[in-house]
Amino acid sequence: MGSTIEYMDSHQVKEKQFREDLLLKYESIMAQGNGYLEVRNSLEETYQSGSKGMFVAGVFNKYSEEEVTELANFPDVVSTMIKIDGETVKLTNGTMKNYSRTMDYSNGQTIRQFEWTGSKGVVAKFSFKRFVSMANKHLLANQISIEVDQMCVVEITSGIDGRITNSGSQHFEEGEKRFHQDKFLQLVTETSDTKIPISINCTHVLTKESKKNVFMKRRQLMETHQVSMSANTTLDFVKYTLVYTGRDKEYDANEMGYLKSASIEELSTIEEKTYDEHFNESKRAWEMLWNAAPITITAKEFQDQLLLNFARYHIHAMSPIHDARMNIGAKGMTGEGYKGHTFWDTEIFILPYFSYNYPESAKSLIHYRLKTLEAAEKNAKENGYKGAQYPWESAWITDGEVTPKFGGIDVVSGKPTPVLTGELEHHVTGDVVFGAHEYVSITGDESFKEELVEMAIQCAKFWSTRVKWQEEKNRYEIHQVIGPDEYTEHVDNNAYTNYLASYSLRLALQLMEEFPDRAKKMITSEEYDDLIAVNQALYLPTPNERGIIPQDDTFLSKKEIDLDKYHKATQVLTILNDYNMDQINDLQVLKQADVLLLLLLFPESFSQEIKQANWDYYYPRTLHDSSLSKSTHCNFALLLNDVDTAYKLFQSIFDIDLSGENMHSSDDGIHAASLGGVWQNVVLGFGGLRINKNGLSLAPKLPRNWDRLEYVIKFKKRKMTVTITHDQVEIREDSGEDHSEIELLFFDRKEVFKDKLTLKY
Amino acid sequence: MGSTIEYMDSHQVKEKQFREDLLLKYESIMAQGNGYLEVRNSLEETYQSGSKGMFVAGVFNKYSEEEVTELANFPDVVSTMIKIDGETVKLTNGTMKNYSRTMDYSNGQTIRQFEWTGSKGVVAKFSFKRFVSMANKHLLANQISIEVDQMCVVEITSGIDGRITNSGSQHFEEGEKRFHQDKFLQLVTETSDTKIPISINCTHVLTKESKKNVFMKRRQLMETHQVSMSANTTLDFVKYTLVYTGRDKEYDANEMGYLKSASIEELSTIEEKTYDEHFNESKRAWEMLWNAAPITITAKEFQDQLLLNFARYHIHAMSPIHDARMNIGAKGMTGEGYKGHTFWDTEIFILPYFSYNYPESAKSLIHYRLKTLEAAEKNAKENGYKGAQYPWESAWITDGEVTPKFGGIDVVSGKPTPVLTGELEHHVTGDVVFGAHEYVSITGDESFKEELVEMAIQCAKFWSTRVKWQEEKNRYEIHQVIGPDEYTEHVDNNAYTNYLASYSLRLALQLMEEFPDRAKKMITSEEYDDLIAVNQALYLPTPNERGIIPQDDTFLSKKEIDLDKYHKATQVLTILNDYNMDQINDLQVLKQADVLLLLLLFPESFSQEIKQANWDYYYPRTLHDSSLSKSTHCNFALLLNDVDTAYKLFQSIFDIDLSGENMHSSDDGIHAASLGGVWQNVVLGFGGLRINKNGLSLAPKLPRNWDRLEYVIKFKKRKMTVTITHDQVEIREDSGEDHSEIELLFFDRKEVFKDKLTLKY
Repeated sequence: MGSTIEYMDSHQVKEKQFREDLLLKYESIMAQGNGYLEVRNSLEETYQSGSKGMFVAGVFNKYSEEEVTELANFPDVVSTMIKIDGETVKLTNGTMKNYSRTMDYSNGQTIRQFEWTGSKGVVAKFSFKRFVSMANKHLLANQISIEVDQMCVVEITSGIDGRITNSGSQHFEEGEKRFHQDKFLQLVTETSDTKIPISINCTHVLTKESKKNVFMKRRQLMETHQVSMSANTTLDFVKYTLVYTGRDKEYDANEMGYLKSASIEELSTIEEKTYDEHFNESKRAWEMLWNAAPITITAKEFQDQLLLNFARYHIHAMSPIHDARMNIGAKGMTGEGYKGHTFWDTEIFILPYFSYNYPESAKSLIHYRLKTLEAAEKNAKENGYKGAQYPWESAWITDGEVTPKFGGIDVVSGKPTPVLTGELEHHVTGDVVFGAHEYVSITGDESFKEELVEMAIQCAKFWSTRVKWQEEKNRYEIHQVIGPDEYTEHVDNNAYTNYLASYSLRLALQLMEEFPDRAKKMITSEEYDDLIAVNQALYLPTPNERGIIPQDDTFLSKKEIDLDKYHKATQVLTILNDYNMDQINDLQVLKQADVLLLLLLFPESFSQEIKQANWDYYYPRTLHDSSLSKSTHCNFALLLNDVDTAYKLFQSIFDIDLSGENMHSSDDGIHAASLGGVWQNVVLGFGGLRINKNGLSLAPKLPRNWDRLEYVIKFKKRKMTVTITHDQVEIREDSGEDHSEIELLFFDRKEVFKDKLTLKY
Repeated sequence: MGSTIEYMDSHQVKEKQFREDLLLKYESIMAQGNGYLEVRNSLEETYQSGSKGMFVAGVFNKYSEEEVTELANFPDVVSTMIKIDGETVKLTNGTMKNYSRTMDYSNGQTIRQFEWTGSKGVVAKFSFKRFVSMANKHLLANQISIEVDQMCVVEITSGIDGRITNSGSQHFEEGEKRFHQDKFLQLVTETSDTKIPISINCTHVLTKESKKNVFMKRRQLMETHQVSMSANTTLDFVKYTLVYTGRDKEYDANEMGYLKSASIEELSTIEEKTYDEHFNESKRAWEMLWNAAPITITAKEFQDQLLLNFARYHIHAMSPIHDARMNIGAKGMTGEGYKGHTFWDTEIFILPYFSYNYPESAKSLIHYRLKTLEAAEKNAKENGYKGAQYPWESAWITDGEVTPKFGGIDVVSGKPTPVLTGELEHHVTGDVVFGAHEYVSITGDESFKEELVEMAIQCAKFWSTRVKWQEEKNRYEIHQVIGPDEYTEHVDNNAYTNYLASYSLRLALQLMEEFPDRAKKMITSEEYDDLIAVNQALYLPTPNERGIIPQDDTFLSKKEIDLDKYHKATQVLTILNDYNMDQINDLQVLKQADVLLLLLLFPESFSQEIKQANWDYYYPRTLHDSSLSKSTHCNFALLLNDVDTAYKLFQSIFDIDLSGENMHSSDDGIHAASLGGVWQNVVLGFGGLRINKNGLSLAPKLPRNWDRLEYVIKFKKRKMTVTITHDQVEIREDSGEDHSEIELLFFDRKEVFKDKLTLKY
């Protein structure tokens, strides 16, 4: 079939050929967003295989008691029907030439162009431009330009279509449809269960006079414009859409004017500027983001820079850092996959990007966890534990655990496979405090530390009741969990989980020491004694005689099978076509990094020999069936100084979303954690940066393919630029107020610098 | 654009060319059903403009409190994805030749054929056959035959897809998905509000060995079969679907086995027979229906017979005469239009067909009104009246009034137009008793008469409280109604309504006299006195000096405008593009027959001169913007002996659903009342039959185009065949038990006959 994707330069990707069966791919990878709202890049024309999607952060709803809450798919404002002399313009009708759709990840605009000849011979050149504004978070703008070679009538139908669902589940009432001032279309409705009001407002601006017809059908509110075109003229058709919801900070429940009249007023201001003026405002807002933390990879080929730019674009498009009541979905808001739910992906994979570059945004993401603390406490209580148990999947701040109960088919029983992660994958409660505390280490934001005390204590309390005392072994153990490797369920003493629990306990004890007054109110002396006892006697699996840390109590004794077939598969999860979860549970096969991730999070705690031994053991047994796996392995290979393997792994991350080989991997949305992983690979991996309680360290390992890497980070509020070539590293502090000396560990040597330092290696 | 429809013979219609934008038309007119379930004729491939639909009679649900109940659109079992060597077979891909889809209205089977060449040169001949069984009401069968000219791999994906909605409103829970015995797909779910459980069961039977893969996604349960084909071989792929619901009579709420295990058992029996065997069983069931009441139009052209066959096919496909808790929807179950609701269309337009031919079915339809009597009483009470007020739109027997509150856009205010019929269109309560009593006259089913007593009394009580005493005029009037002409709202003394109210009162008084014991329990003497008083003094508008019966108190003084533009429009309702309802209300324009219908229902009550005068007045002012209008006018023209006008009107009914000119008139479903009207035109109009309390009469008026008309009817349980040519009429009683003489009014002369009579005219 060949690939239809072309990589143009370090910030642009092109769909060079229209293929109806590949629409989902482009809808996801070219999704447009600003953290507040995100829209899949569905085409104006409707085709069979597309999946339209517009999501607004925080607007969750549950179709019924039998389903879990999810980001509600908003009414469609993208679809536009165009007719020329009565004939519908579609790429599957008529004759089409010179098709292309490009996405510019530097400014978020897509441009689609083609030349179309209808059955009556009119030749029309189309150009579709679209962006979601980074300058006005409520604004989506589209421009359709149509140039015709002869006299004809162009008819365009556009409006608001509320027939959209989340794969069949409808989340909105039909609502109130209105035309205001004969030019503004407005739909005000609300989610069916959570009763969140929303307001969608559209207007159409045309460069030629048109005959207008308006109509309302069920859940639809539409306008048809008929334009009589002369030969060799162009029509520009601009559509502005403004979206507001009851979850906006500005919304006041007693005042529907925000949704009903203020939105229409804003629309009348918006329509006074041209598409280009709005686009330039949005572009400048993107530029400000990039300028705050530029990263340049100098290499013969631009693919690695493209991957990084792609990752960074999507992180900003999908992260609702404007509102601490919201967090990042596992597929952002680029599709219905994972329902907009937040996982440990935020803390372990994405948060470092913000902590190192945009600390205020990182803080907002951590605040989300503080705001969900109460729900986590309720969750712990419901499950019979003390303290706070963070949900495996998290949505609105009061929702608690929202993991669905069933997944795909069990090939053996013919029934849907139960999803046990919500019930058993408990390490997230360790990951959350880990991420929050890493933020403090990186930013030096000591004042924020105090805000973490309650969360840390509650999480530690959870662990202190989650453990089981094993009398015969004289230790505490943690039984019946799923670790990061989700191919093993109901295991005891998953190493990762136990170590993170231990971390969580130690952090709580440390913060209690630092903030005794604050801590006192939150814990009884009995509970405190429990924390101490559990912290001292919690079983932490140690390397066996071969240096291997057992993933859990039984993993190393499970059956081994030939995994070659699955390693070679271009799709993920192919093992589920041959085995059901019960069967996989009895095999030595990993979905993703587990023990290796543990060693990567705590590299100082384990020797190089231990790292090597565990790599040698676990790496061949890992299928990377989770997109979280490869970036971890990449950085792990760098710990072992295996730059070539690391770079191969890094390159293979390109395939997760941008691949021309597997055109269906992103159908349900892009892979958020993997995007954070890409940045970690570039800056923390090849770039060799590390900041922890010991301070700043640098140990870069440039891939052979790269000539130079330059990145900016913030260390304790001081902005620094690191420039790496194959023989030297330059670190330069950009002008700030603080000009004190900074200590730095460069590989194994200690250095001190002020303003600027050049190091050979 | 030209028409894509071809009329093949008196029972077959062909789609001779595939046009994506015309799919809705064929989905509706080629819909397949058996009164229990009906399926739109959507294609196996999915295209943009189609609207998939499967509905089961009685399975109503309400998406939310803000919507009204409607027939829930069932999960899709028709869509089938076919790939050849990895390339999706679609009529918009590859090269396609020799396309045709034919519907045979004599047996309900569609056959679609085309030859498709993919990009790699494989030439595949496709044949798709499909029917809904008239022999097993739960069964839908599809057969796909694929003949290939060279070696290739055919991949077929088929199953159950629950992502279907009613224009965006989802009525079902996701439910339980299962694979049974490695070959039966089952979805058991329920409606979200009414909690009606349903069970959909599918199996696939292939004539070649296949590699099977099963998968479950959200609301989807699918099977993919891969078949390696040799050159010049054919694969037959048969899919059987069985549908059961909690509204089936056989369903026992305490025993889910009916939906879960019995359905699978039945499926394993079903799959033992071939597609053709099942089809032949269904065909025989259709033949039995036709043989019970054959009608033959002998003419040079077959179009009129085709229209009649089309009408009769759809009446049987859409009428749930198997269960008296259900009635006929205004678009049957052929689409989402009118939500499956029952209107007066049943009694005034469709019921006569059943009363004359299938009296047991007619009785079931009347029983529905008896079963909804309690809801009608509640409805009356809620509106401040006594007795029973039948809802304008009716759904499940306990639902009461279900008319939606809003329709299309008001072009003046920019808001949705309020729908007032539910509030104001009260004549339905007269229509219901009219239809029921006509059934008794036609069938002579005197024993059933007693069952009508309560209904008649309750309806009369409604009218006795619905009227207003006008002291100054010394009479009762009925204010604030909508008559059959829905272009006038809030009018006083709509003639049709007042006459039907009067009919209703008189019928009640008559039945009370006939069944005094039964009546006594239902009415107090005070209420009885009220009926008498209202009956005596109810204002019945009489012809004015010009012989015109005023449609209501104000109609004749309203403004007149030039209607030429709207008469000439190929679409209906075009006047709403220029005027809103308030404005139309001030004009002398009729949507449909109003006074004329009244005169048609009671022809003996008005002189020929009065009929002529009213025709001359109202006909030019009527836009026929309701499909109920033309058949009424056709039979009215015959009352005036204007056979040519009548025949022109009859021919124009062809256009309502079967037209090649207006390809969008049936998008939301076919026009049920119009179908009943067609039969009334043929038998009661041109065929000149009339049965009422005066007995049997015949006054045929054959159109010039027809040489002969032969039809069968049942008169008081005696089956008769009437054969009409231009100069003689033969009436023949088919062998029955009763051989007594029958009196007959032939035009103006009285005749008596036994067994057979030939009359010249």
